[in-house]
Amino acid sequence: MSRKLIVGVPELTDADRKQIAEAADRNGFEAVFCTMREEALPDDAEIVFSGSPAFAKISRNLRWQCSVSAGVNQFKGIPVFEDGTAMLTNSSGAYGVTIAEHLVMMTLEMLRRQVEFAAAAARNEWIKPLPVKSIYESRVTFAGTGDIGCETAKRIRSFEPAAMYGVNRRGRNPENLFDRIYTQEQIGDVLPETDILIISMPGTDETFHMLDEKRLALLPDGALIVNVGRGFIIDEKALLPELESGRLAAALDVFETEPLPADNPLWNSPNLLILPHVAGNMTLAHTREKIVAQFLEDFDNYCAQKPLARLVDLKAGY
Amino acid sequence: MSRKLIVGVPELTDADRKQIAEAADRNGFEAVFCTMREEALPDDAEIVFSGSPAFAKISRNLRWQCSVSAGVNQFKGIPVFEDGTAMLTNSSGAYGVTIAEHLVMMTLEMLRRQVEFAAAAARNEWIKPLPVKSIYESRVTFAGTGDIGCETAKRIRSFEPAAMYGVNRRGRNPENLFDRIYTQEQIGDVLPETDILIISMPGTDETFHMLDEKRLALLPDGALIVNVGRGFIIDEKALLPELESGRLAAALDVFETEPLPADNPLWNSPNLLILPHVAGNMTLAHTREKIVAQFLEDFDNYCAQKPLARLVDLKAGY
Repeated sequence: MSRKLIVGVPELTDADRKQIAEAADRNGFEAVFCTMREEALPDDAEIVFSGSPAFAKISRNLRWQCSVSAGVNQFKGIPVFEDGTAMLTNSSGAYGVTIAEHLVMMTLEMLRRQVEFAAAAARNEWIKPLPVKSIYESRVTFAGTGDIGCETAKRIRSFEPAAMYGVNRRGRNPENLFDRIYTQEQIGDVLPETDILIISMPGTDETFHMLDEKRLALLPDGALIVNVGRGFIIDEKALLPELESGRLAAALDVFETEPLPADNPLWNSPNLLILPHVAGNMTLAHTREKIVAQFLEDFDNYCAQKPLARLVDLKAGY
Repeated sequence: MSRKLIVGVPELTDADRKQIAEAADRNGFEAVFCTMREEALPDDAEIVFSGSPAFAKISRNLRWQCSVSAGVNQFKGIPVFEDGTAMLTNSSGAYGVTIAEHLVMMTLEMLRRQVEFAAAAARNEWIKPLPVKSIYESRVTFAGTGDIGCETAKRIRSFEPAAMYGVNRRGRNPENLFDRIYTQEQIGDVLPETDILIISMPGTDETFHMLDEKRLALLPDGALIVNVGRGFIIDEKALLPELESGRLAAALDVFETEPLPADNPLWNSPNLLILPHVAGNMTLAHTREKIVAQFLEDFDNYCAQKPLARLVDLKAGY
């Protein structure tokens, strides 16, 4: 029986598939490409390259899965990863560029009232200027200072904010990008000094409802929250009245329940920009190419029995 | 009869008005604040601080008008400026920050399909990812390298474009911000190498329909045009079919006729983001404060009979 590399990444191009098939061939593997439509998924993978947790639940011989996602909470509780039978790596590092552009865009759209201007344009209506705000001279806090947070901070810096603060687990200051660093436990200290809060933290037990009613209340009037981490980092029930009253504004790409249910009151909330979890998808060629390159790098590591570069600690959640 | 400083800037705050009134008082002037609503405008100004050309047409003793705008084509043909009786200054330098944020936002919105995502969100509809593009690794051309072009270029650089080119009248490279510089006459040379064209040029005889059918055809398939200069820099009749065919995309804050008439076909064009000339308004506090500070600086110059800092050459058009 040949060693199987099962690939479940519908976004791949023919060129990507060719590259992966050749790498598999060189290393004595057979690459099998799944469309992820309703077909029966193969259960004989030694390696899986996919963002789907479905393979790991049925594979009998799985040793390694590389997820195309950066966040990995969908893999929590799967026995082969929990008991150490199989390794899990993620594609952290591939999304910084695309999500940074997304975050700057969402931030500016909310500061510059684009939801309202877009609605007027859709009605073919030329409206008067609305009061706008700027990144310039604002205090920007980055909850999450990994690849995404850092790439975003580098771009935000060019807009000359008054200050940039970082919040992360260990209190480190990557590349000295931030004017001050807070640990996750200290986030309450920085919220009152935050005009723009950019969240790119992973979804873990510790970040669940990190922004609850009490923490939201610490943000100054007029603050903006932008979230591309996981939806449950914010308690949406506590956020909604803050948006409705106009005290806070938000731009959200992620939600506690996705797709956002049709009857969810957030759809009709003022002061909110809703994106359907598209910040970090693979439609940007650069992102897709980097995900494939990173997988192939670790595939070589795996075949040479070297350590994998992007191993996930499922207990930590990233 | 006292010397009159007439102020027609409805956006001023009480603090701004106080500051101006005190400066006037110190220099033997009387400051008169007009609401610019239907009242009869005073005709006895020695100095006017306003973006409106209405005062200059009726004032008998005008020596200097400071416009709150950066563009000044609305003052063309007014005798007191043409014959040198009165000086005209603009507020160039005050809009770089706000328009740079606007330009980066418009660019990202078009690259990331925000018109379509916004329409879906307005229908409470969670749609699948759409193919997006990035500033990263794109070739960006700045037609106009004044305050606005430079402030925008500094921000765009942080997104790591493949190249940044500048186009201006004299072929100079301000602050060495650009990888290559072209003169206005050479713009045809850079268009085929342009993925994103950012226009912040003034409206002059030379820039009228600078982007005509032939020049638009030089842009590569999939190029994006973003215009905050003057609407007539682009021949809208030639642009429309390029948008409708999907060969080009555009984000426009300015139009040949403003407000954009309700029956203008641009309203319903695909691949187009329409903003109602709001990129450089005075609703951002920083902009308003800088305009007032620059005016007061030149007011001191005027009273001390020193040269004014932002004198406009109406023949050149800026």
